[in-house]
Amino acid sequence: MINICLFGAGLIGSVHAGNLARHAKVKLRYVVDPRPDAAQRIAALTGAEIVDTDTALGDAEISAVVIASATKTHAQIAMQAATSGKAIFCEKPIDLDIGRTDACLDVIKKTGAIFQIGFNRRFDPSFRALKRRIEAQEIGSVEQVIITSRDPEPETEEALASGGGVFREMTIHDFDMARHMLGEEPTELFATGSSLVSPAYAKLSDFDTAMFILRTASGRQCHINNSVRASYGYDQRVEVHGSKGMLKAGNRTPTSVELSDARAISRDKPLFFFVERYAESYAAELDHFVECVDGKRNPHVGADDGRKAMILCETALASVKSGRLEPVRY
Amino acid sequence: MINICLFGAGLIGSVHAGNLARHAKVKLRYVVDPRPDAAQRIAALTGAEIVDTDTALGDAEISAVVIASATKTHAQIAMQAATSGKAIFCEKPIDLDIGRTDACLDVIKKTGAIFQIGFNRRFDPSFRALKRRIEAQEIGSVEQVIITSRDPEPETEEALASGGGVFREMTIHDFDMARHMLGEEPTELFATGSSLVSPAYAKLSDFDTAMFILRTASGRQCHINNSVRASYGYDQRVEVHGSKGMLKAGNRTPTSVELSDARAISRDKPLFFFVERYAESYAAELDHFVECVDGKRNPHVGADDGRKAMILCETALASVKSGRLEPVRY
Amino acid sequence: MINICLFGAGLIGSVHAGNLARHAKVKLRYVVDPRPDAAQRIAALTGAEIVDTDTALGDAEISAVVIASATKTHAQIAMQAATSGKAIFCEKPIDLDIGRTDACLDVIKKTGAIFQIGFNRRFDPSFRALKRRIEAQEIGSVEQVIITSRDPEPETEEALASGGGVFREMTIHDFDMARHMLGEEPTELFATGSSLVSPAYAKLSDFDTAMFILRTASGRQCHINNSVRASYGYDQRVEVHGSKGMLKAGNRTPTSVELSDARAISRDKPLFFFVERYAESYAAELDHFVECVDGKRNPHVGADDGRKAMILCETALASVKSGRLEPVRY
Amino acid sequence: MINICLFGAGLIGSVHAGNLARHAKVKLRYVVDPRPDAAQRIAALTGAEIVDTDTALGDAEISAVVIASATKTHAQIAMQAATSGKAIFCEKPIDLDIGRTDACLDVIKKTGAIFQIGFNRRFDPSFRALKRRIEAQEIGSVEQVIITSRDPEPETEEALASGGGVFREMTIHDFDMARHMLGEEPTELFATGSSLVSPAYAKLSDFDTAMFILRTASGRQCHINNSVRASYGYDQRVEVHGSKGMLKAGNRTPTSVELSDARAISRDKPLFFFVERYAESYAAELDHFVECVDGKRNPHVGADDGRKAMILCETALASVKSGRLEPVRY
Repeated sequence: MINICLFGAGLIGSVHAGNLARHAKVKLRYVVDPRPDAAQRIAALTGAEIVDTDTALGDAEISAVVIASATKTHAQIAMQAATSGKAIFCEKPIDLDIGRTDACLDVIKKTGAIFQIGFNRRFDPSFRALKRRIEAQEIGSVEQVIITSRDPEPETEEALASGGGVFREMTIHDFDMARHMLGEEPTELFATGSSLVSPAYAKLSDFDTAMFILRTASGRQCHINNSVRASYGYDQRVEVHGSKGMLKAGNRTPTSVELSDARAISRDKPLFFFVERYAESYAAELDHFVECVDGKRNPHVGADDGRKAMILCETALASVKSGRLEPVRY
Repeated sequence: MINICLFGAGLIGSVHAGNLARHAKVKLRYVVDPRPDAAQRIAALTGAEIVDTDTALGDAEISAVVIASATKTHAQIAMQAATSGKAIFCEKPIDLDIGRTDACLDVIKKTGAIFQIGFNRRFDPSFRALKRRIEAQEIGSVEQVIITSRDPEPETEEALASGGGVFREMTIHDFDMARHMLGEEPTELFATGSSLVSPAYAKLSDFDTAMFILRTASGRQCHINNSVRASYGYDQRVEVHGSKGMLKAGNRTPTSVELSDARAISRDKPLFFFVERYAESYAAELDHFVECVDGKRNPHVGADDGRKAMILCETALASVKSGRLEPVRY
Repeated sequence: MINICLFGAGLIGSVHAGNLARHAKVKLRYVVDPRPDAAQRIAALTGAEIVDTDTALGDAEISAVVIASATKTHAQIAMQAATSGKAIFCEKPIDLDIGRTDACLDVIKKTGAIFQIGFNRRFDPSFRALKRRIEAQEIGSVEQVIITSRDPEPETEEALASGGGVFREMTIHDFDMARHMLGEEPTELFATGSSLVSPAYAKLSDFDTAMFILRTASGRQCHINNSVRASYGYDQRVEVHGSKGMLKAGNRTPTSVELSDARAISRDKPLFFFVERYAESYAAELDHFVECVDGKRNPHVGADDGRKAMILCETALASVKSGRLEPVRY
Repeated sequence: MINICLFGAGLIGSVHAGNLARHAKVKLRYVVDPRPDAAQRIAALTGAEIVDTDTALGDAEISAVVIASATKTHAQIAMQAATSGKAIFCEKPIDLDIGRTDACLDVIKKTGAIFQIGFNRRFDPSFRALKRRIEAQEIGSVEQVIITSRDPEPETEEALASGGGVFREMTIHDFDMARHMLGEEPTELFATGSSLVSPAYAKLSDFDTAMFILRTASGRQCHINNSVRASYGYDQRVEVHGSKGMLKAGNRTPTSVELSDARAISRDKPLFFFVERYAESYAAELDHFVECVDGKRNPHVGADDGRKAMILCETALASVKSGRLEPVRY
């Protein structure tokens, strides 16, 4: 049995708690959250004990932590956990500041801690199959990647105020997917943003509608389009064009029911948002993490992936300002 | 906590065991199976204790049983469980013999036992949504139902020899679906069978390829087509035509990946067989059963549904012989 | 230039007139119709001259006739045309009476006239491709055929009164498709009909909703479902199951536009009715006929196909009455 | 009858010739082409007479010209036709040089000649329906447009050498579609190109793989992706995201046939190239032109549309060089 402590009992923390509680090899031993109600809810559902950080990390029987707390606490908890000899699963981003990110990565490197970053989409069954089939040469050499990534609805103003902006909160997942699917490191990036959906974004000098083009050294290209609102639900599609064909993966719907009537032929909208759409990928990324803690493999997606996606966010912000294709300085 | 005993540790028993083990309100207390290996496997996975029938049914803390044992044992275990005051979830059919089925139903009626039959397809998210949308009058009055139901591969000769024939083993699910979707009781039935796939079926005077037409008193019609082999996987589709439109529900695929290449545009085959295709419905039917045991509702699909589907099987066998549209005598 | 005379200037006559007028090798020389307005409309569009039957058939420069007049006139015109040495394209059915059909076929046989029956669906690009791919062994040996054939709306009472009933007017096309796709002659047939859509059909002891099962000598099976009303448009689908897979062909839509909004993902309904849905097949069957007149090939679908489909209609009527699987007596 | 002269008897000239020959209100009177074979082929098919430019434009009975000759001759013929009082349908581009384009537009303006540019895609039934449904407010206010436009195979080296480069030959259609679907004029443009498919493009300092982002003054965004090779055929898709939903239109396939076998579920690739894919739009744009010549309406897509798309090409070339989001100077 692998004893795990969960940091953060919010929405994504609850998703992880559910997956940990159902895992045959895991005991969710502790939950840490400054909000007693949230912690209590998870404790009730899973039997985890509510403790503070020091107790959790001081317990030698805890071999791993899952960090799903507020973004600004990620790096600090991760460093303390690494120093305490724990394996770390950390939600993205490591930190909104690249300096603190690097400081955290130094500690992880020095301690040799197992570290997996929460880029869950890599574990989505469809995107995983797509990647595997690229590697199996079904479409030859990759040439262009098109990523459509649209949230169903804007964030609350409160969430916006405490967040790191759309690029660092939302596009970061797409940047990771771009790196993953391109099969080469993006070396240049162009970004542009608009305020078309909600004035709340513009108020924070942020964008609710954005487009990106990334290039690799060999000339591979990737386009990303983002919007914070899609009336039809969470729109998450990837299309990869290669020398011998195209692979694409799309949305998931609750049912396969189709209605034909006097108006149209209509079927279900995509699943509403990430909790539903990526349910399988959240479970699979923790399965993978448990295998890593168990010594069976190394994390497929580690600290360096978190850092590089963050640098792409920074480059995008620079490109919006300069109006230029900016070099990516990893 | 509801203490449950599982009878039968075979393929379908294992599916139920997994769903019971994950259920927050259930403790899978006992498993009963004459085959020690099979029982042991489930015991190891779930922590259930291996006992014999009398011990299980004699334990007053057991409030419910799940019967997934060999078909010929269903009725006997169900009657004994009913007499012992247990709620019963029973795989279909209750018995291959209609006389023994009726005897069992008598006991259930007299004891007032909660009884749910394992017509899992009614709990499939897509078929359930389809039914709900019929009831919401999205297609007006039902006129015709088309059921496509094709297994991926023939049964082994061993399974065939011990089974009740294709109609009672396979079509029985479609007959239940027909009753469910027609919204009226079928009163007449025509059936025809062929031997096109495997001589093993013909050897037993059975059919591997069959078609059916059912009629209700008001003239609604239902077609079912069956084959024991579909190279592309388990083919499970329902199409309901009404006065204002058509609703259909189809197969599920492992991923949404689509490949476009010089040959074609191709996507995943349907999931292989019932364990994968109906994973959600197996979980949902047990959730429903637990709610019934918990006193929150009555089973949506009960002993009488098991009996009526069985009578449709008998009518189908009679029709094949007579070459006639046979009246259904419930 | 092949000079052709068109008999019948109604809806389907107009479709043929348009295709003849656009054909590079054809001159639509005459149109014959007792209704001056209808004849005039086609004359104006195509430059054809309005004449009577004797003039048309007496003109030695006319080498072929296209018969799209009232059903009861088909056989008489066909016989006279055959005797006059013309090639004949005749809308189905040859006659509603099997005796008169046989009399007409005798004349055609004796004169050796080229004769093509208007089973246009065989020329539909999708059904044609499906058939070709069956013959290319893509699905191995054919086992079951499922034909969905639903008109968008009931006939007018006037049309019903003068017609031959739903089986002879509508299902006849499906019977031809069944023979075509089964690849073996149906030898037994079961039919059942209901009155669910419009009382006008029942008034004529006819059915507006019907289902059929056909069997061949080797045990291949075919299901047909019919309704005279589909709110979503003309529903014309064929599904062929074989030992190695399944081929299906479906409806055509006016555009590929798909709308995703807060309600659903919706796309176009099928094209409304046969004129739109089978536009390409009407053109292709006349192209084929012209090639036959030109001596390049023999009609793929001839008088015998018309006769056999008609016999299946008669067998279906007998089966509805007897409630039995009836032998087909060709 | 409207007498028309066709300039250019190549591939696209033949498409126009076919559509003109079938048009009820048109007589294709003349064909002009310096290549006797090509001209002869069209003359044989349509009955057009082969003449030289001066004869054609000097004939007072000719009221319109269709210019499908070599690009470098477009402007000269258009100006001479305008001065001769003819209505003009001209293939894009008017000229590869913006100065000569402007000179031509001056003459057209001064003479008041009817002028339609050959942006045929606006007449595609699906794209036309998509545009109409945007205007009907089905998706609210347009926010982002995604255009996928991929040719099935690279140009021959010969065609490349005589052409104006990928942006002016291929992307120009997408730029027109972008303007059309955005509903606002693009004011800024970013472009990037790579050489991944064929060295022939790089040899001419051209690109075979490109991506674009366009912005309008209000912040609407459009992405275009281009490749000169798609193994699966001509890939022509448009996706328009608005405040209330998304509309998309896709490829067309030769048939609706779908094969399910042990490998996958597969359907037809898209139609091979523009002649097949846009067959209906080529016919519809000439129908529209004839209506304009007939005085019933003004061209929906005129000289200014040709000029503006050309300016977007120039801006794209500038952006590739500068690596910047370039302002569009119309």
